[in-house]
Amino acid sequence: MKIETHLLDQQTKIETWLRSQFHRTPPPFYSSVDLRNSGFKLAPVDTNLFPAGFNNLNPAFLPLCIQAVQAAVERICPDAARLLVVPENHTRNMFYLEALATLVDIIRRAGFEVRVGSLLPDLDAPREILLPSGRSLLLEPVIRDGNEVRVGDFQPCAVLLNNDLSSGAPAILQGLSRPVVPPMALGWHRRLKSEHFAQYRRVAFEFAQLIDLDPWFIDPLFRKCGEINFMRREGEDCVATNTAALLDDIKRKYDEYGVDKEPFVIVKADSGTYGMGIMTVRNAEEIYVLNRKQRTSMSASKEGQSITKVILQEGVYSFETFGPDHAVAEPVVYMIDRYVVGGFYRLHTERGPDENLNAPGMKFEPLSFAEPCNNPDQAQPPDAGPNRFYAYGVVARLALLAAAREAKMCE
Amino acid sequence: MKIETHLLDQQTKIETWLRSQFHRTPPPFYSSVDLRNSGFKLAPVDTNLFPAGFNNLNPAFLPLCIQAVQAAVERICPDAARLLVVPENHTRNMFYLEALATLVDIIRRAGFEVRVGSLLPDLDAPREILLPSGRSLLLEPVIRDGNEVRVGDFQPCAVLLNNDLSSGAPAILQGLSRPVVPPMALGWHRRLKSEHFAQYRRVAFEFAQLIDLDPWFIDPLFRKCGEINFMRREGEDCVATNTAALLDDIKRKYDEYGVDKEPFVIVKADSGTYGMGIMTVRNAEEIYVLNRKQRTSMSASKEGQSITKVILQEGVYSFETFGPDHAVAEPVVYMIDRYVVGGFYRLHTERGPDENLNAPGMKFEPLSFAEPCNNPDQAQPPDAGPNRFYAYGVVARLALLAAAREAKMCE
Repeated sequence: MKIETHLLDQQTKIETWLRSQFHRTPPPFYSSVDLRNSGFKLAPVDTNLFPAGFNNLNPAFLPLCIQAVQAAVERICPDAARLLVVPENHTRNMFYLEALATLVDIIRRAGFEVRVGSLLPDLDAPREILLPSGRSLLLEPVIRDGNEVRVGDFQPCAVLLNNDLSSGAPAILQGLSRPVVPPMALGWHRRLKSEHFAQYRRVAFEFAQLIDLDPWFIDPLFRKCGEINFMRREGEDCVATNTAALLDDIKRKYDEYGVDKEPFVIVKADSGTYGMGIMTVRNAEEIYVLNRKQRTSMSASKEGQSITKVILQEGVYSFETFGPDHAVAEPVVYMIDRYVVGGFYRLHTERGPDENLNAPGMKFEPLSFAEPCNNPDQAQPPDAGPNRFYAYGVVARLALLAAAREAKMCE
Repeated sequence: MKIETHLLDQQTKIETWLRSQFHRTPPPFYSSVDLRNSGFKLAPVDTNLFPAGFNNLNPAFLPLCIQAVQAAVERICPDAARLLVVPENHTRNMFYLEALATLVDIIRRAGFEVRVGSLLPDLDAPREILLPSGRSLLLEPVIRDGNEVRVGDFQPCAVLLNNDLSSGAPAILQGLSRPVVPPMALGWHRRLKSEHFAQYRRVAFEFAQLIDLDPWFIDPLFRKCGEINFMRREGEDCVATNTAALLDDIKRKYDEYGVDKEPFVIVKADSGTYGMGIMTVRNAEEIYVLNRKQRTSMSASKEGQSITKVILQEGVYSFETFGPDHAVAEPVVYMIDRYVVGGFYRLHTERGPDENLNAPGMKFEPLSFAEPCNNPDQAQPPDAGPNRFYAYGVVARLALLAAAREAKMCE
């Protein structure tokens, strides 16, 4: 059973269903979804609602981003045309700042006025940052006036968050009369991966019924544990017990479909990001014998937030490789509004097919999406480029729909 | 004064205005606009609401068409997903049929079910036509059931007309409970170019006020005459008098801006299409001394419809040339919904810069739009490719807005 074939055969049914779903539950402004493709399974493993990395997309597809931004902003600000982008507080992470500059560029080319409002605590005047690409970014301090925000005399019709709020929802953005998109309730200070994947499980179930598929082919099994402190060895039993149960569940599915591979589990912070606080576990006993380095890395996430909750997720092998070094590759799909606008492969030559690739040493292959994801070709074999990418775009949009339902829960 | 510079400088203002205009007056489903660029003037000369020629677009930009079709159809059929395309009654015009196949392909890739319902009078069973590209098209007879139409057991949620209705609105499509888009009232059996350009004149005036421009830079002057029969030499005085007046008006504008060129006028059928019934006039006296061939060509339009009304339009030189032969070139811009999705140059090596290029011997240069029109680059000079194309996209959308207002008048 090739998942790609199944999705291609039912394309019209799928698109109709997605359309009606997003009609009912509008998608978040933008999103990037990490997928893993083991050949027998194609599943999302992380859904980012404050995506960076737009500079890694194939520049040939920027027009798709522009068109999608026009549709997305029109829904938020039907008349006005001024967006304030509030980014992460990075000033030296040039990868991030280049991505931010590309995002700003896309919005500007879509015909909107856009400025960057920084939350950097020590920023008291506009600060220009020159980028390696030769571009520059102007970070301006956000000013609060009553229930409006501005930078200088620029009053936006909406705030576009590109900050995942790992350290909490900033007071300066609370209670505004203008929309903040995506809503702050979707920041990592509140959001839990386990809630996302609980929503995704329901989406996958409905979708699988629609096209007559075992949802397991697109849905990673998971369990969760709270009250965890890896440093103080608190909650280990919960993690070990659930890991064992999850490994059993995966084994049963592997047996059902004759998959001759060793099951594995990914343990990760339930609200973690940046690829931090993630480990691969092949045997529940490993949980009791973690070394100091492993305990440390599982104790704090981005910006030093301590990890007290984890999600245990079925590991999905990545049997895609790229280039002469056969680097393990996982696709990352970008969406703006409900449109798939591009993507790239995340590559890592030092990691195995059962490991997290979002780690120092990763590379991006912007050109590997040779064709955009919305352009399947029935005349080609199911795993030909455009068709595989169509399948990626479908599964990524299922994760987007799960995120849309998360957002609706928060309203 | 470069028009391109002016448009680029005010991009945000322009996009905001177009957005609010199309919010108020939704655009027709699709459109292609013929432009002429004389360097000192950039103006639409024909707006086609039943465009063929999608196969001449750069295939790299098909994803833009797909995304735009998704937005357009969603507005017409929020839930259902079945479109019936009703094409021209051509069976041997392979250029047209290839264009039709590309249109069908775009709609299918956008995730809709689509079939082709032909109005061919002698078609009593589905008929497959093999195309030079190796593709095939299935033409099926349209069947009327009460106030619905179908082909076979396929019941569409809407009819997409790709037939300009030169011979009238077919009874089988009248009084349907489902939408017909574009509305039949925009067919050439009722539509007049002079009404379109009267709407365009108002649009150009409003737009020119917005960005502080003499509207003449984007608006071709025109006059009109009814009760014409070139064969029987009826109405010649009206045409000659108005041609003389128009030549004077153009001369005054040329003098105002120091344009050292000879004014000319294009006389064309007020509801003509396919480049038929068009002539260039440099002197009003010419009208009285037309030869037999000229009279014949000005007497009947597509499908033998007789020409009784003409529009006299300011001729706009085309000083763009293309290729080693310096073929005279005019840009044709394609839009789906309110999105510019591509275009090409129409070329003619046998025609001068003051002549109609839509004539036997014309060629298309699909690759010459090296960049899509929605992607201006402030960092490049105003007449660099992406910026010139941005200007084309703006003026084409002004013509689209005029067509939207025409449609509203017909409601």
